[in-house]
Amino acid sequence: MNILITGGAGMIGRKLARRLVAEGQLAGQAIRRLTLFDVVAAEWPPSATVSTTVATGDLRDTATVQQLLASQPDIVFHLAAVVSGEAEQDFEKGYGCNLDGTRNLLEALRIYGNDARFVFASSIAVFGAPFPAAIPDDFFCTPLTSYGTQKAIGELLVSDYTRRGLVDGFALRLPTICVRPGRPNAAASGFFSNIIREPLAGREAVLPVADDVLHWHASPRAAVQYLLHAATMNSALVGPRRAITLPGLAVTVGEQIEALREIAGDKVVARIRRKPDPFIQKMVAGWPRNFQARRALDLGFQPDTSFADIIRIHIDDELGGQFS
Amino acid sequence: MNILITGGAGMIGRKLARRLVAEGQLAGQAIRRLTLFDVVAAEWPPSATVSTTVATGDLRDTATVQQLLASQPDIVFHLAAVVSGEAEQDFEKGYGCNLDGTRNLLEALRIYGNDARFVFASSIAVFGAPFPAAIPDDFFCTPLTSYGTQKAIGELLVSDYTRRGLVDGFALRLPTICVRPGRPNAAASGFFSNIIREPLAGREAVLPVADDVLHWHASPRAAVQYLLHAATMNSALVGPRRAITLPGLAVTVGEQIEALREIAGDKVVARIRRKPDPFIQKMVAGWPRNFQARRALDLGFQPDTSFADIIRIHIDDELGGQFS
Repeated sequence: MNILITGGAGMIGRKLARRLVAEGQLAGQAIRRLTLFDVVAAEWPPSATVSTTVATGDLRDTATVQQLLASQPDIVFHLAAVVSGEAEQDFEKGYGCNLDGTRNLLEALRIYGNDARFVFASSIAVFGAPFPAAIPDDFFCTPLTSYGTQKAIGELLVSDYTRRGLVDGFALRLPTICVRPGRPNAAASGFFSNIIREPLAGREAVLPVADDVLHWHASPRAAVQYLLHAATMNSALVGPRRAITLPGLAVTVGEQIEALREIAGDKVVARIRRKPDPFIQKMVAGWPRNFQARRALDLGFQPDTSFADIIRIHIDDELGGQFS
Repeated sequence: MNILITGGAGMIGRKLARRLVAEGQLAGQAIRRLTLFDVVAAEWPPSATVSTTVATGDLRDTATVQQLLASQPDIVFHLAAVVSGEAEQDFEKGYGCNLDGTRNLLEALRIYGNDARFVFASSIAVFGAPFPAAIPDDFFCTPLTSYGTQKAIGELLVSDYTRRGLVDGFALRLPTICVRPGRPNAAASGFFSNIIREPLAGREAVLPVADDVLHWHASPRAAVQYLLHAATMNSALVGPRRAITLPGLAVTVGEQIEALREIAGDKVVARIRRKPDPFIQKMVAGWPRNFQARRALDLGFQPDTSFADIIRIHIDDELGGQFS
């Protein structure tokens, strides 16, 4: 089995690559070859059995993409994207990478014609307010960012290329990933992870919104499991609607904090500092916060069981089981 | 006022051009200039006051499109498209014209930066079965053709370019146009018009489906009125969701035939020959047939009043008030 990951240097890409290499097989088939593609060189996951290639380049460049796919991978995980803020700021780069890049991949797969499984990381940013209390699977896409627009277009392309038998694709609308490892970044949604990760590491975290803000979460481990499930599930059962809202946990910030208290105690929770930020509050008010995701549950996608479990996954996978 | 119509040689494009030239103004502003663009030269509507240009070319060609928009039109009616059957048969031509062509137009408008009103003819083909009995405005787009996919992508682009203030656009999901003038064509939906137009002209028409088949119709006159309304309405009231399902009339084939009988009598109706066609029946079963279209009604889009009225419009506009 020959696997390509675009965005292989990203947080989810690295976790997916490590998991694939650690298991050495997927759905009972040995992984012979793994290619990690990104704009910067991905970390090389050590392996005795899997031949790994690290490639760098720009998905906007058609020749780069055709060369990348010349080895005719059986599975492509397309995780690479210009993120929301940058796609909003740099119109041409956002459309170039997120729309043209995705289309270049699909076109190269069409030309090579080996009916590859194509797992595309879409986003709940395809939805734009106002929303019902829990967004049903048949709710329309009205993105309020260029990033969300580009993801929604990618979903349509994945479904059409699949319907025509050119690829066998899925577009997965991932929840917000929590707890994101690493240092706080500029993302407006960063605080959902910061208020867990930073206190567990002995540092203060700023909470810019009220405790009753509801949001839609999945752990990095659940996200990797979603990608693997989409790569191996029986696509013949799915039909032509290939954009799937994944299950997550709808929890309030207050529930996040109570789960942290349950696991780590008052001392850790005391490191969360409330500092209301009207700018972030306004952005967050426009984000989707809860979904039904019935179809994904029927298709066997398994969400985290509780927010406490999401915190434990972080402590296990990132902190070696310890916190201070 | 400077107006561009792409697809200016098509049925709706010609009717729209004639209407604009006949009125000489739009929303109280004199029309100075009208450009009709298509792959073939459009008919030249005679006018003493409007300077008309007929241009031919390919919207896939970026330079052609930039040149076409160099005169910085105030309003662009983008009606040109590779139709459903051809887009399904010729993958590259369909995506080239319907996706890249639409994007080339929006990009040229972005570069010229004059915030033009952009009225894009989308289609109910953005929807794919199964459907609820009457599709609500917030129902998702799951097209089952490449044409529908390309139209859905065009809608997303129109909304995003509008949200960013690059154009002021609307994507209008037109109902099936009935009664289509001209001779019967290869379109699978052609019978909805054929069974009215041909008997009124003294010719036999074939009906390939059962009388209880429901479908969603608008007259050519209503379609032109929809385009003009979208070109002149106060867009500040609309918000960022710029794809609009237009109102239509949901009528069964049996109701179409009874309306024809009411207007033209048994002798004309007797020219309809029932010849069931399982291939067409299967295609038709996958088409959307009824919509709520509440938002469009709230925005002032006015549907035809009855199917009998649709037939009378055909007799008035195409047959000079006479039938045989």
